[in-house]
Amino acid sequence: MKAIQDYYPEEFAQCFGCGRLNEHGYHVRSFWNGDVTEARFTPKPYHTALPGFVNGGLLASLVDCHATGTSAGAAYRAEGREMDTLPAHRFVTASLRVDYLRPTPLGPELLLRGRVLSISGRKVRVEVTLSVNGETTVRGEVLSVEVPDSMRSSSRPPPP
Amino acid sequence: MKAIQDYYPEEFAQCFGCGRLNEHGYHVRSFWNGDVTEARFTPKPYHTALPGFVNGGLLASLVDCHATGTSAGAAYRAEGREMDTLPAHRFVTASLRVDYLRPTPLGPELLLRGRVLSISGRKVRVEVTLSVNGETTVRGEVLSVEVPDSMRSSSRPPPP
Repeated sequence: MKAIQDYYPEEFAQCFGCGRLNEHGYHVRSFWNGDVTEARFTPKPYHTALPGFVNGGLLASLVDCHATGTSAGAAYRAEGREMDTLPAHRFVTASLRVDYLRPTPLGPELLLRGRVLSISGRKVRVEVTLSVNGETTVRGEVLSVEVPDSMRSSSRPPPP
Repeated sequence: MKAIQDYYPEEFAQCFGCGRLNEHGYHVRSFWNGDVTEARFTPKPYHTALPGFVNGGLLASLVDCHATGTSAGAAYRAEGREMDTLPAHRFVTASLRVDYLRPTPLGPELLLRGRVLSISGRKVRVEVTLSVNGETTVRGEVLSVEVPDSMRSSSRPPPP
């Protein structure tokens, strides 16, 4: 099954968090499950905070990329378009809020769930919860915006 | 010169963001400069968002660890204690807010500046700004708390 991120054009698929073309990255992959999106991720042993717990920066990164992916998926749905049609939607984060409700144990698979709170023009607001073994440990909220022209390669001079 | 994180005891120095003992991590190192703290970080070429810009999840991670380091430093200062005295202070993040004011160009060194907004009991609130070439691109705010007993190795059974 193709993830939302699998539909990103090459230019938009380099992200350290979710780019399928970034060989060093986390490869977050988000899927619709009814009206919510889901992504699963198993941290490496070195993704630690204090021993035995997952690093909060990594958790923020997962929330971030799952939310921008959810935003892209929601934008297609709002237009009644399939994700393999053009122009491609790609969102970047304007603001990120992460509440660490309790420590996240390191080892088991993490489940991220995204829910669209609002969609308006070029902005989408997404809530993400992260759970492990059925217990929610993190709640995030992301305001994402459609990628501005200034961040597109076509708008910048080629590198020297 | 020793960074705040260099004073963390071994158990607290494993963090993927700032642990000196994590060989895969970012090794964020925070230093006092008068009443503010500073950390510098040069992202790798693969720490990308869209091509040419720094990944937002990485930026959140830098904000996070610079803020918890700042919190530890501030706790010692509030007690009039040197950082090589015991008991050791170590903070974890309760909530993280990051505003991406503008895209952060990938390549140049990033400068993080931390400022203590409040310190009260086991909680410290820290503002972090991140700039590149003198321009602020990110503003973060972190509420950190002294590491709870439940996250200390001494409070947990040994792994099987």
